[in-house]
Amino acid sequence: MTSNSIGKIFNYITWGESHGKAIGCVLDGVPSNIKLTEKDIQPYLEKRKPGQSKYTTQRKEKDIVEILSGTFEGKTTGHPISLIIYNQDHRSKDYSNIKNKFRPGHADYTYWIKYGIRDYRGGGRSSARETAMRVAAGAVARKIIEKKIKNKVKITGALIQIGTQKINYKNWDDNFILKNDFWSPDKKIIKTWEKDINNARKNGSSLGAIIEIRVKGLPAGLGEPIYEKIDSDIAKALMTINAVKGVEIGNGFNSVYESGITNVDEMKIKNGKPTFLSNNNGGILGGITTGQDLICRFVVKPTSSILSVKKTINDKMKDTTISTKGRHDPCVGIRAVPVGEAMVATTIADHCLRYL
Amino acid sequence: MTSNSIGKIFNYITWGESHGKAIGCVLDGVPSNIKLTEKDIQPYLEKRKPGQSKYTTQRKEKDIVEILSGTFEGKTTGHPISLIIYNQDHRSKDYSNIKNKFRPGHADYTYWIKYGIRDYRGGGRSSARETAMRVAAGAVARKIIEKKIKNKVKITGALIQIGTQKINYKNWDDNFILKNDFWSPDKKIIKTWEKDINNARKNGSSLGAIIEIRVKGLPAGLGEPIYEKIDSDIAKALMTINAVKGVEIGNGFNSVYESGITNVDEMKIKNGKPTFLSNNNGGILGGITTGQDLICRFVVKPTSSILSVKKTINDKMKDTTISTKGRHDPCVGIRAVPVGEAMVATTIADHCLRYL
Amino acid sequence: MTSNSIGKIFNYITWGESHGKAIGCVLDGVPSNIKLTEKDIQPYLEKRKPGQSKYTTQRKEKDIVEILSGTFEGKTTGHPISLIIYNQDHRSKDYSNIKNKFRPGHADYTYWIKYGIRDYRGGGRSSARETAMRVAAGAVARKIIEKKIKNKVKITGALIQIGTQKINYKNWDDNFILKNDFWSPDKKIIKTWEKDINNARKNGSSLGAIIEIRVKGLPAGLGEPIYEKIDSDIAKALMTINAVKGVEIGNGFNSVYESGITNVDEMKIKNGKPTFLSNNNGGILGGITTGQDLICRFVVKPTSSILSVKKTINDKMKDTTISTKGRHDPCVGIRAVPVGEAMVATTIADHCLRYL
Amino acid sequence: MTSNSIGKIFNYITWGESHGKAIGCVLDGVPSNIKLTEKDIQPYLEKRKPGQSKYTTQRKEKDIVEILSGTFEGKTTGHPISLIIYNQDHRSKDYSNIKNKFRPGHADYTYWIKYGIRDYRGGGRSSARETAMRVAAGAVARKIIEKKIKNKVKITGALIQIGTQKINYKNWDDNFILKNDFWSPDKKIIKTWEKDINNARKNGSSLGAIIEIRVKGLPAGLGEPIYEKIDSDIAKALMTINAVKGVEIGNGFNSVYESGITNVDEMKIKNGKPTFLSNNNGGILGGITTGQDLICRFVVKPTSSILSVKKTINDKMKDTTISTKGRHDPCVGIRAVPVGEAMVATTIADHCLRYL
Repeated sequence: MTSNSIGKIFNYITWGESHGKAIGCVLDGVPSNIKLTEKDIQPYLEKRKPGQSKYTTQRKEKDIVEILSGTFEGKTTGHPISLIIYNQDHRSKDYSNIKNKFRPGHADYTYWIKYGIRDYRGGGRSSARETAMRVAAGAVARKIIEKKIKNKVKITGALIQIGTQKINYKNWDDNFILKNDFWSPDKKIIKTWEKDINNARKNGSSLGAIIEIRVKGLPAGLGEPIYEKIDSDIAKALMTINAVKGVEIGNGFNSVYESGITNVDEMKIKNGKPTFLSNNNGGILGGITTGQDLICRFVVKPTSSILSVKKTINDKMKDTTISTKGRHDPCVGIRAVPVGEAMVATTIADHCLRYL
Repeated sequence: MTSNSIGKIFNYITWGESHGKAIGCVLDGVPSNIKLTEKDIQPYLEKRKPGQSKYTTQRKEKDIVEILSGTFEGKTTGHPISLIIYNQDHRSKDYSNIKNKFRPGHADYTYWIKYGIRDYRGGGRSSARETAMRVAAGAVARKIIEKKIKNKVKITGALIQIGTQKINYKNWDDNFILKNDFWSPDKKIIKTWEKDINNARKNGSSLGAIIEIRVKGLPAGLGEPIYEKIDSDIAKALMTINAVKGVEIGNGFNSVYESGITNVDEMKIKNGKPTFLSNNNGGILGGITTGQDLICRFVVKPTSSILSVKKTINDKMKDTTISTKGRHDPCVGIRAVPVGEAMVATTIADHCLRYL
Repeated sequence: MTSNSIGKIFNYITWGESHGKAIGCVLDGVPSNIKLTEKDIQPYLEKRKPGQSKYTTQRKEKDIVEILSGTFEGKTTGHPISLIIYNQDHRSKDYSNIKNKFRPGHADYTYWIKYGIRDYRGGGRSSARETAMRVAAGAVARKIIEKKIKNKVKITGALIQIGTQKINYKNWDDNFILKNDFWSPDKKIIKTWEKDINNARKNGSSLGAIIEIRVKGLPAGLGEPIYEKIDSDIAKALMTINAVKGVEIGNGFNSVYESGITNVDEMKIKNGKPTFLSNNNGGILGGITTGQDLICRFVVKPTSSILSVKKTINDKMKDTTISTKGRHDPCVGIRAVPVGEAMVATTIADHCLRYL
Repeated sequence: MTSNSIGKIFNYITWGESHGKAIGCVLDGVPSNIKLTEKDIQPYLEKRKPGQSKYTTQRKEKDIVEILSGTFEGKTTGHPISLIIYNQDHRSKDYSNIKNKFRPGHADYTYWIKYGIRDYRGGGRSSARETAMRVAAGAVARKIIEKKIKNKVKITGALIQIGTQKINYKNWDDNFILKNDFWSPDKKIIKTWEKDINNARKNGSSLGAIIEIRVKGLPAGLGEPIYEKIDSDIAKALMTINAVKGVEIGNGFNSVYESGITNVDEMKIKNGKPTFLSNNNGGILGGITTGQDLICRFVVKPTSSILSVKKTINDKMKDTTISTKGRHDPCVGIRAVPVGEAMVATTIADHCLRYL
């Protein structure tokens, strides 16, 4: 049963395992005559890359992307774009200690039940390594959006909570986001987060996180009624990211604390144009963009790979224990920021092509 | 651009407007030889039907469903099942006061921008009336699940929060859910909710709600990796329901307050079978069911149709005001419970057919 | 498994059985603001309707189509258009003589093998009655094409061969096609065909036919490379029509008798515009329209329902014989003409929406 | 707009240009636990490979396929299988003489109109080189069929006509097909074909061909009603092959010369099993396999790349002439045989997964 591709008019399929020869994706539906070289993609991979700070996994991957098809003389041709990243780190490890065990919180057990075979090397297909190709696809998606939308569209992801500690929205500084290891928009929270993550690591534990993504510059009218609403497509796209357990739009779950009076976004003509007096709905009404900022959030559970010893079973249906040694993100949510941005970007690109 | 159908192997398309002649759906992919008559569907429609209590809209609809095709001598034939409900209440009203105005919080403005034409009668296609057909599709989905899964599968939706007031999980009583106007599992909260809703109505306002859905009896192995995870499909399906602004699985957004140590669900062999010591992941790992209860939640914003006067614009791009008179749910989340159940049921039915 | 819908951007699903309550279809993806009422659809149904001449089945059906949704004040809204035709002739007949037998040449045996249940009344879902809804969808498709293509597009089907007797292309007269019972463009062949069909009927037999469809006025550029070529989509669409056993484009199977020198269509600039010196390729190169006439053909096998007694088996796996009494087309290819036109129209409409 | 993938449950996307770095495909939906290595695929590529005889193009390609993902320890894992073939012959040629001209009979003009950019090197994406990946996908499809169907299924393609010269079916010898350069099942026609092809080449011309494909061992019940009939899916799949202009099933276009009496396939119980007394319908009734041999045919037009000088235009909209020098198949139909087999194999594999 097919399940490795996403998108309707702009669609991509990813392939590859954590410790296979390579990972890649094929993008179909990219319009022709868009300037595109590896240089448009590589910077986004750099932002996601493991081993960049002491707060992310120490796996070493250069993650150099190569375009194998679909461009000619530096421009897209309208034909499938095949991207590949060769895995460098794919033969090094001894997996004998986890080969037959199911890591709790991971897909090991469910994959084994479903397929009766499991590439146990680093999670195989279920590894977050797959998300590198989403980031690559997201970079191409940004080029599509740029081509299709007159306005400058800006997609910005930021980490707004790690463990119990939320940012203060009043301190939000877009420029700061790329200047710290956490994608934080709030300079003041950095020390707290550093401390909390270090503590979690020391305790053989890990922390969860909440990411917010804002899209500025979208026109009104993106999205389709009933079952292909842009918010339902975004919810799906974000929920496909490893370890994500919730998604919300605009006020999201906090809507329940609003009343009908406070929650509707009133409208007014300003300089001849329709404007809204608030944005509780996150820029989407009836599944279609309003022209306001699109705002969404998602939560990433604490990394399941932890040093602490946990009870589990093996594929002989025997009780055992496991402790996931090695290079793991103490807060996998940090590296989910560029992935979330990418999923929003590819969803929007898909809807741009339906719309314009 | 198509967007009115959902599901891959089991798929249905809905059609019809709030105040058109009829609403309906066509279900494709239903296996043959399942016993099915209108009697299997009607009870679910009764549960969703407007006008049942003073806490829901007073629109009067009998909502009698008729099967037009796809069954023979009381059994499904494997061919499309066409369902129809004739609208009874479709000519009665004078819409001149809202005909040219965009109701804030509704899809009026975005539909108008997108299509340049709008069936203003009760929201037309964007009306929650469309969800009656989801409930009908859900009833058929339950029959598919029953045929495909050996275990008895039970899908139970309940309202767990209205406005600021949450239920107490300790009071949870499955049997009570169908015995009150709110789908509450907690008898003790009823009076509070009644009071709050009455207050909201008196103030020309409305309230939001959170719904939880639990599915018992699912086997391990439902769901597909990467982009058709069962949780991402459920997130999409729930997010397509009118007024829904967030979806979560298992611990959901509260996962951020857990640590890696507390959040992973340890495993153990019990009576020869794999079991889990907790269910923080809501019965899903890597997008595939674990065999535990599947647990999800979604939030419904406060009804946007309110008596209070709000600022808006009209289709001549002029400022104006609006107050939505008439029959509206003070808490539209209440009637979203059976709709949420239906969306979960149709998603699971679709995955059952991929699996078994 | 879903299989009752066709089309990607403009898609429709048909439903209903030969002798059920009604047949219908739901069209998704129709653009908004197209004028559409039943009057745009009914004339095409009249052309296909049974009982119109002594050369087609005498089943009496008024085939009155009703639009149930998707239009407002005579215009499309962009939402699903639901069409319905109530069956009038659905209770009259005694099927006891064929109830348990498999009619040779029909889908009776294969449906029974596949589904284990069979609506034996007139073929149920496999009946050519389903094609009435294709014709209705085709009428809507023509309106889409009219909206999207500047040029006047004209889709003309004609019968070019019955049994052994071909038309003479030199006699082709577009105006004559609708003035005879056979959709013949050649006045001179009518008497021969009448005689042959009468003979076939007298002998308890039936005849096959070949239909040619020409589309004038298409722009260059319709169709997508590799797997969604407009010719492969047309081939699929035509092959889904009951009793069709072959499809060809341009010179089709006769290409084999051409040489590379005679078969390529040379180009020349004429009045500043690209033109072709011949049309051996039927207006399609690389799966994309060239701007020439699109030309395709399909063959319809002789009607399988015949008076002659034939050997068959029953659902108890016993030998038996069958003779299909009653109202049947002696040459089912005649009524396939408007169906073929419709399938080409819906395929082109779908590609128009991808293109423009 | 996506268009480079085919198949519903088993789907593959191909990518790559004739003279790009590489070509490849990604196969999604392959079941787990099937033994698969490059050795299962390479032999089929050898059969299609250019440069094998003087009757096919002299382009030199080793066409060595590599599996990049989706297998573990020699078995499929249920995850996407990525295949790659590096182009060896991709930088050698000077295209300046055709760079700005549209080759008649090719997709040059239509791609240029559609995309406004064209990879002119050997046809780019529209080159028959793409079909190498179809053959690779077909090899995997055969493994799926083998896993799903108890019977031994045998898919055999053969060339039955080149130019005016047809084989004599009485001479059909399955074993001879792989022993000659033409995939001919008839030893006696070889000399005639050799002579005709040599003549065509000498005259700067080329010849068309008809290919027949027979599938033995299929169960009854493969295929879905109405719009996903196995014959319409096969028709589509075959029509996507470069230069194919017609497809037929069973008696195909010759059905028109049959009568209803001679054309229906009578049934009889033989050794307790349903059997047919003839196979005019090519093993398909109502779009579903009958359990007989599935028989289809397709026609390949004469190669459009010919030495003879032909009139054409260039991308400045000026008249010019062209003569396609270099390595071209005098009868491209010869190398279409394994491609046709592959398209039938992938279509059947897709339907096997829906069925079993």
